[in-house]
Amino acid sequence: MEESEPTRILMGVNESTIKGYPNPSISSKGAFEWTINKIVRSSTTGFKLLFLHVQVPDEDGFDDMDSIYASPDDFKNMKQRDRTRGLHLLEYFVSRCHQIGVSCEAWIRRGDPKEVICHEVARVRPDFLVVGCRGLGPFQRVFVGTVSEFCVKHAECPVITIKRRADETPQDPVDD
Amino acid sequence: MEESEPTRILMGVNESTIKGYPNPSISSKGAFEWTINKIVRSSTTGFKLLFLHVQVPDEDGFDDMDSIYASPDDFKNMKQRDRTRGLHLLEYFVSRCHQIGVSCEAWIRRGDPKEVICHEVARVRPDFLVVGCRGLGPFQRVFVGTVSEFCVKHAECPVITIKRRADETPQDPVDD
Repeated sequence: MEESEPTRILMGVNESTIKGYPNPSISSKGAFEWTINKIVRSSTTGFKLLFLHVQVPDEDGFDDMDSIYASPDDFKNMKQRDRTRGLHLLEYFVSRCHQIGVSCEAWIRRGDPKEVICHEVARVRPDFLVVGCRGLGPFQRVFVGTVSEFCVKHAECPVITIKRRADETPQDPVDD
Repeated sequence: MEESEPTRILMGVNESTIKGYPNPSISSKGAFEWTINKIVRSSTTGFKLLFLHVQVPDEDGFDDMDSIYASPDDFKNMKQRDRTRGLHLLEYFVSRCHQIGVSCEAWIRRGDPKEVICHEVARVRPDFLVVGCRGLGPFQRVFVGTVSEFCVKHAECPVITIKRRADETPQDPVDD
């Protein structure tokens, strides 16, 4: 059976609030691992992962909004001083994809995360969007993050919201 | 590479408002075909589909809430008079799975669809839930059906909402 074009999955990823920028948030990491284990499984050629990191404009972040990163080598050629903030985050996910053998692309945009994600959905037209979400703590069962809730309503593609497991929820909700 | 347990996908399915019970709704059919084309792809052994049809209590429906249907043969042995309403709906999806070669189970429950779906998620613990939704007409872009919205917030598993394509939306929203 000939395989059709790979299913293109867009993932919004962000940094850890506790550990800072080199580290992805627990919910981003969880959403990624869930997608690999439950959707991609062993069909590594059937899927392509697209990673989007949105920086809010007042952050002291990385300025390159034009580059696309698709292999760990794309990060090696950069000067150390440029490897700051959001780029570490992309490198984490691109390297994991490389280990697993699934193709990927990653890029950075600046703006309001929920609006930028929906804008990028309209631009790149993925088959679906995966967003992690910080809900599901003992007192937060009903809460679904504003970014994921906005995307479910407004994104022009199917959206899957991955809530963090309760046992991964830090005691202080700000510590993700 | 040894495959782990199949990914279990629960789908809530309902009937067409226009054509009546033997016919699945456009949104249920769309959500099913999307799941096969974009998620299952050629990995038919990597997934198991679970179909849940919830009948609202005032409908003149089928009474058997205990049986599970997993193959087209499970429907053949029934008397014609029993093959009414919700059961035709299950037969449609079970037969499609059989054609495609993906294993499945299907069953009926009665109650408030959004609450029953969340209850069944807690009981059968699928890896994720797929719900179709009637939104995305020209005047309905923001609307996400109450069932899917409730499930996104309350179901104890990841939820993917498949909006119907705009070109499949009937002119009168009640005609699905």
